[in-house]
Amino acid sequence: MNQIDGKSARALLLILSTFTYLLFGAMIFDKLESEDDNRVRDEIERVTERLKNKYNLSERDMHLFEAIAIKSIPQQAGYQWQFAGAFYFATVVITTVGYGHSAPSTLAGKLFCMIFALFGIPMGLVMFQSIGERVNTFIAYSLHKVTPTHLLMVSFTIGLLVIVSGTYMFHTIEKWSIFDAYYFCMITFSTIGFGDLVPLQQTNALQEKPLYVFATILFILVGLAVFSACVNLLVLGFMASNADEVTAANREPPSAIVLERFAR
Amino acid sequence: MNQIDGKSARALLLILSTFTYLLFGAMIFDKLESEDDNRVRDEIERVTERLKNKYNLSERDMHLFEAIAIKSIPQQAGYQWQFAGAFYFATVVITTVGYGHSAPSTLAGKLFCMIFALFGIPMGLVMFQSIGERVNTFIAYSLHKVTPTHLLMVSFTIGLLVIVSGTYMFHTIEKWSIFDAYYFCMITFSTIGFGDLVPLQQTNALQEKPLYVFATILFILVGLAVFSACVNLLVLGFMASNADEVTAANREPPSAIVLERFAR
Repeated sequence: MNQIDGKSARALLLILSTFTYLLFGAMIFDKLESEDDNRVRDEIERVTERLKNKYNLSERDMHLFEAIAIKSIPQQAGYQWQFAGAFYFATVVITTVGYGHSAPSTLAGKLFCMIFALFGIPMGLVMFQSIGERVNTFIAYSLHKVTPTHLLMVSFTIGLLVIVSGTYMFHTIEKWSIFDAYYFCMITFSTIGFGDLVPLQQTNALQEKPLYVFATILFILVGLAVFSACVNLLVLGFMASNADEVTAANREPPSAIVLERFAR
Repeated sequence: MNQIDGKSARALLLILSTFTYLLFGAMIFDKLESEDDNRVRDEIERVTERLKNKYNLSERDMHLFEAIAIKSIPQQAGYQWQFAGAFYFATVVITTVGYGHSAPSTLAGKLFCMIFALFGIPMGLVMFQSIGERVNTFIAYSLHKVTPTHLLMVSFTIGLLVIVSGTYMFHTIEKWSIFDAYYFCMITFSTIGFGDLVPLQQTNALQEKPLYVFATILFILVGLAVFSACVNLLVLGFMASNADEVTAANREPPSAIVLERFAR
C-alpha cells in the first residue's frame, strides 16, 4: 500500500507542478507578447481600412481575397506535393515535428497520413534510438577510458556543432536572422514544429535547389538522431547517479541504456 | 565484435527501412494530393485575377493586402496571448504538439519559449509516464486476474472513448466534419500537430467560452496521458513476448516498465 501511495503522490505532485508551470508560462507569454500583438492588430486594421477605402472593396470581396490569400500560402511556396515536397512532408510527419507548412487537403490524403504516421513514427523512434546507441558506443570506444560525463560532453559538442551549422545554413540561405535560425533549430529538434519558420518555402527551393532540399531533410534527421543520443545519455547519467544497483522492488528501475552499460 | 556488428547492422537496416518508408510515403502523398493542389492553384489564380481586374489593384497593394491577410489569421481567431490563449499555447508547447496557430513574434517571447520548452517538455513527459503507470496499475488491480492483453484491451477502450468524445465535441462545436474532427484528434495525440485544424479559433472562443477552453486543454492532456499508457503497455507486451528473463549480456534489455512488472 505504501508503494502505491508513494507513486500516486508522485503522480499528483507532477500533475500539480505541470499545471503550475503552465500557469506561470501563460503569464509570462501574456506579458511578453500581448503588447506586440495589439500593435500588429492596430496596424492590420489601419492598412486594411486604407486599402478598402482606396479601392472601395466590398465586404464580401475583401473576405474572399483574404481567404484566397491564406489558401495561397503553401502554393506560393512551391509545389508541396511533388516529389521533393512530399518527401519533406513525410519526414515532417514521422518525426512528429509537423510544421503544417503543408498538410493534406483530400480525405484520402488525411487518411493515408494517419496510417503513415501510425507505422512511421514508431519506426522513426526505434531508428533514432538505434543510431543514438551506436553513436554513444562509438564515442565510448574511441575515447577508451570514458566516464558518462565525458560521453555527455562529446555528445553535447556534436549536438552543438549540428545546431551551429544548421543555424548558419538557414541564416545564409533563408535569410533569417541568426536568432531566428537558431530558434528554428530548437523548435525543430524539440519536435514542437510550430511552422512559423519553415525552410524550403522560398524561391521555389523545393523544385530548384535539390541539394539544399537534401541538406535540410538530412539536417532534421541527423539533428534528431544526435538529440536522441544526448537525451539517452542524460537519462543514463541521471539514473546512474540515483541508483545503487538494480534494486527493482522499491525503486524506479533504470533505463535500458543504464542496464546495458552495467551489463558490458 | 559480433554484438557490435549485429547492432550496427540493425541500425543500418533501420535507416534503410525508414528511408524507403519515406520514399514510399512521398510517392503516395504526391499521388493523393497533387491533383487537388493544382485545382486549388488554378482557382486561386482565377479569383485573384478577377479581383485584381475588378478593382484595378496595383501589384504592390495586392502583395500588401496578402501579407496583411496572412498576418491577421491568428488575430482574427482571438486574443492569442491573453490568459486563455497563452495557457493554451503553453500546453501546446510542453506537449510538443506545436500547432503553430499562434507563435511568439517578439525575440523575448521566442527566447522564453525555448527555455520554457527545455524544462517543460521533460516535466510533461515524466508526468504523462507517471499518470500512465498509475492508470495501468489501477486497471490491473481493479481487474484482479489480468493479463497484459486484458490491460491493453482496457487501455485501448479508454483511449477509444477519449477519441470518440473528442471527435464528437469538436465536430459539434467547431463544426468540423466527423472525419476532420477524428483526424484532428489523431494528429494531436501523435503530437504531430500540423495546425491545419485548431480548436478555439472561431467565434472568439478563447475569450467567450471558458468552459470549452478548459475542456479542450483537458482533452489534449488527458488524451496524451491515455496515449502514453497505451504505448507503455504495447512496449511491455512486445518486450514480454520477446524476452526470456533479464539476460542482459546478449539481449537488448527490456524497458523499465517490463522490469517493474517483473519486480512486483
